[in-house]
Amino acid sequence: MNGFACKANFSPSDFFSSGLAMPMPTDNMLGFTVTPANVMQIPGLNTLGVSMARADFAPGGLNPPHTHPRATEIIFVLYGELDVGFITTTNVLVSMTIKQGDVFTFPKGLVHFQMNNGKEPAAFIAAFNSQNPGVQAIAATLFAAMPPVSNSVLSKAFQISYQEVDEIKSKLGGKP
Amino acid sequence: MNGFACKANFSPSDFFSSGLAMPMPTDNMLGFTVTPANVMQIPGLNTLGVSMARADFAPGGLNPPHTHPRATEIIFVLYGELDVGFITTTNVLVSMTIKQGDVFTFPKGLVHFQMNNGKEPAAFIAAFNSQNPGVQAIAATLFAAMPPVSNSVLSKAFQISYQEVDEIKSKLGGKP
Amino acid sequence: MNGFACKANFSPSDFFSSGLAMPMPTDNMLGFTVTPANVMQIPGLNTLGVSMARADFAPGGLNPPHTHPRATEIIFVLYGELDVGFITTTNVLVSMTIKQGDVFTFPKGLVHFQMNNGKEPAAFIAAFNSQNPGVQAIAATLFAAMPPVSNSVLSKAFQISYQEVDEIKSKLGGKP
Amino acid sequence: MNGFACKANFSPSDFFSSGLAMPMPTDNMLGFTVTPANVMQIPGLNTLGVSMARADFAPGGLNPPHTHPRATEIIFVLYGELDVGFITTTNVLVSMTIKQGDVFTFPKGLVHFQMNNGKEPAAFIAAFNSQNPGVQAIAATLFAAMPPVSNSVLSKAFQISYQEVDEIKSKLGGKP
Amino acid sequence: MNGFACKANFSPSDFFSSGLAMPMPTDNMLGFTVTPANVMQIPGLNTLGVSMARADFAPGGLNPPHTHPRATEIIFVLYGELDVGFITTTNVLVSMTIKQGDVFTFPKGLVHFQMNNGKEPAAFIAAFNSQNPGVQAIAATLFAAMPPVSNSVLSKAFQISYQEVDEIKSKLGGKP
Amino acid sequence: MNGFACKANFSPSDFFSSGLAMPMPTDNMLGFTVTPANVMQIPGLNTLGVSMARADFAPGGLNPPHTHPRATEIIFVLYGELDVGFITTTNVLVSMTIKQGDVFTFPKGLVHFQMNNGKEPAAFIAAFNSQNPGVQAIAATLFAAMPPVSNSVLSKAFQISYQEVDEIKSKLGGKP
Repeated sequence: MNGFACKANFSPSDFFSSGLAMPMPTDNMLGFTVTPANVMQIPGLNTLGVSMARADFAPGGLNPPHTHPRATEIIFVLYGELDVGFITTTNVLVSMTIKQGDVFTFPKGLVHFQMNNGKEPAAFIAAFNSQNPGVQAIAATLFAAMPPVSNSVLSKAFQISYQEVDEIKSKLGGKP
Repeated sequence: MNGFACKANFSPSDFFSSGLAMPMPTDNMLGFTVTPANVMQIPGLNTLGVSMARADFAPGGLNPPHTHPRATEIIFVLYGELDVGFITTTNVLVSMTIKQGDVFTFPKGLVHFQMNNGKEPAAFIAAFNSQNPGVQAIAATLFAAMPPVSNSVLSKAFQISYQEVDEIKSKLGGKP
Repeated sequence: MNGFACKANFSPSDFFSSGLAMPMPTDNMLGFTVTPANVMQIPGLNTLGVSMARADFAPGGLNPPHTHPRATEIIFVLYGELDVGFITTTNVLVSMTIKQGDVFTFPKGLVHFQMNNGKEPAAFIAAFNSQNPGVQAIAATLFAAMPPVSNSVLSKAFQISYQEVDEIKSKLGGKP
Repeated sequence: MNGFACKANFSPSDFFSSGLAMPMPTDNMLGFTVTPANVMQIPGLNTLGVSMARADFAPGGLNPPHTHPRATEIIFVLYGELDVGFITTTNVLVSMTIKQGDVFTFPKGLVHFQMNNGKEPAAFIAAFNSQNPGVQAIAATLFAAMPPVSNSVLSKAFQISYQEVDEIKSKLGGKP
Repeated sequence: MNGFACKANFSPSDFFSSGLAMPMPTDNMLGFTVTPANVMQIPGLNTLGVSMARADFAPGGLNPPHTHPRATEIIFVLYGELDVGFITTTNVLVSMTIKQGDVFTFPKGLVHFQMNNGKEPAAFIAAFNSQNPGVQAIAATLFAAMPPVSNSVLSKAFQISYQEVDEIKSKLGGKP
Repeated sequence: MNGFACKANFSPSDFFSSGLAMPMPTDNMLGFTVTPANVMQIPGLNTLGVSMARADFAPGGLNPPHTHPRATEIIFVLYGELDVGFITTTNVLVSMTIKQGDVFTFPKGLVHFQMNNGKEPAAFIAAFNSQNPGVQAIAATLFAAMPPVSNSVLSKAFQISYQEVDEIKSKLGGKP
């Protein structure tokens, strides 16, 4: 649609989502859930170059190290306290503890993470400069891909034994 | 900085702002205040293509019709209820009433506005796909520019008298 | 087509328009007419990132304040004399009187206008860095959109009464 | 400048040129002169992505085959009649005869030319989607570069003798 | 495909080509052959913005002056020795002799060429920042387009006679 | 430089590198070495949007899982045999065994790797659609960043004990 007179039928709801309004359950292995509001949920975002997501954290919850191949991310903390960080291409960790109302930035394509080391739940709203930023959670990408990444690659990359690779694969839901 | 090893000195605070955490006073003519978190406040945003802002509304408050010449905007309502809308290039008003937790989109460059027709304060967080989106509030742009836009232009554009132009200029802080 | 071997059938006329050759009638409320030559008229412009338009002005004619959400504009005056201006995001009016053969620029997304304060007709050729620049004439966008923008928004934005809003709407062809 | 409040000093003339108003002399080998109005002449064009130029043709005048490495070109004929053409990447010549008021397009990076086969002078205004489109006139690029392109390259490319290469170089102002 | 979950069916071979592995015959007029590996051969390249090609040269072989309208080119010499050059928009020839393992760059849209002045075959791998860079070999573009570029244009551009134009056209496979 | 007349001094060597001509030693932990030819080595690449690199592998050598935050990569195998793969954003491993002369593509921002499971050395030339693609080797990014990523993050992300995290950190040269 794009706000211009070239798509025949659209309605205000094509530019709208209520899906980020409520906290999502975080009773999983990571104590963390992400809820997207991108072009899949908001069709009017097509070609517009933005999207949003909500992240909910239990106490101790972790959004594990991941990248967005197509977007920079900027977040606003709704409540709680989070330890956040990204790593530069020269392997410098850039990290802070941020709390309700704070804004932090994760540059395009760089590995980053957020962890709730507080005693209360935490949540943030993220915005991206892509209607479809994509995400690769590093551990799952490597240890739970299908078909599986071979143990020889993972063993050598992390300098761990094949058995240790298999244990991580098993815990993350991957196949040997 | 950009997450890459080419700027000599940077710190995590270059990617951070706490400026959106608190509501700003809205006791002005419009009952509305915007607080930016763009490359001026967050130097690390340079070249990263995102920014944020917070908008606070008194009951009856209005973010008057305006455009961002360089960005699409996507908003998340922190609290309260807002009547929001944008107008397409074929003069169709696309509008909705949105409330806490809702997300809405304003396509790049199009005139849009938000109004708090509820009885409680309202606030939203906006994200942009530019580190420096710019803004032109239409009424102030036309009636309070310096040097002033001539009465002949404004009278003819809005089909009002010179006296009416001068009255609007006066109320919006412009010069005859 | 794009000059590359991927569309099966095209002809030279897909890159051509004769529609800007003649002045168009200007006997309307504004004393102004614009004639486009964009991707709608010249299909070969698709993906090429340029387009043109012709603007004709009666004496006293006005191209009222407007924006192009997707393009910078550069104009060449064919004949006559025009007072032209744009307003920056810091509300500075940048204006000049230009005449036959002069070139002037209106930066991407900014509100701008042209008025013929001379005694003879005037015309210019405009070029845009988009095959589909779009346009929003501010007054009509706000006062003649369908469905209409509410009087509460317009009254507060321009600091005029509901009755004055309705009068402008009526004159610009909008609905109360 | 860019219309945004980040350059300290600018004036309306930074967005203006009067250099295209008058025909330029065409009493040269090709019967053709081009006059640019790009970021070199109009400093305000920086980052805005547009520019213009004027081309004047004597009867029989030729703007010889050339490319713009950074822009699509769209032209408007001021007066006279021109045979224009571009060649696609599949070696199809796309050509037309165009006259006063006509618009024609030359896709980005493709070889194109214009010739005045009429009995009167001709002129057009060109617009580009770059503030600095660049130009390479093919014959001069190959036969008058400094240092010179070797005769072995040119002889083999055009299947002509070294002597013929030297003759073209001499006529075009190049060195053997 | 683009590495993202939006195309239903793809396989590793969509990102693969074996077509550049072997030298191609160079027993033609120029002693030169180019073999592409772009989006036509590797469908997975769509939207990814890269492609490759292989160039093989007989001793004395020439990749004649040409442009890529949509890409910068960077090459790696597999074997042999090549005289390479490009010409800037100010008509400066930038040239070198390069050999096995060397890397050289041809900026976007500029005329460039490579010639094997050695006694052995030579080959290079080229990469482009477009999945579909396009190519225009200057001599063939001008003298072998269909329909043909008129002799008046070519005669005047190269300052040669109609008969010389026809001879070049004939040798390059064009029509008078 | 960019091939255009705006930098005062440049020479052909600004567009050249001989640094990829020879295999580099691979007697390290991974049996792998990468040699860049980007804007750091070839200053003329600035703004041109391409670069190259050479990768050398001992038998058993691994280019461990990594991303390029700013570029798609396309490779050409100089000699040897490699098992290569990337993982999509839906966690599908796309992998192949490729050999001398083969071409393979790694889409922008996605995690990918190459391993030499053959008995002979292997090498490839990579090209990128950025003059400065950047790289993040995942294991080193996470386990050898400075300051270190906390054990709580890594333990939870990979579902391993703090002791196992410390062992990996130690082997990869990181700090506890």
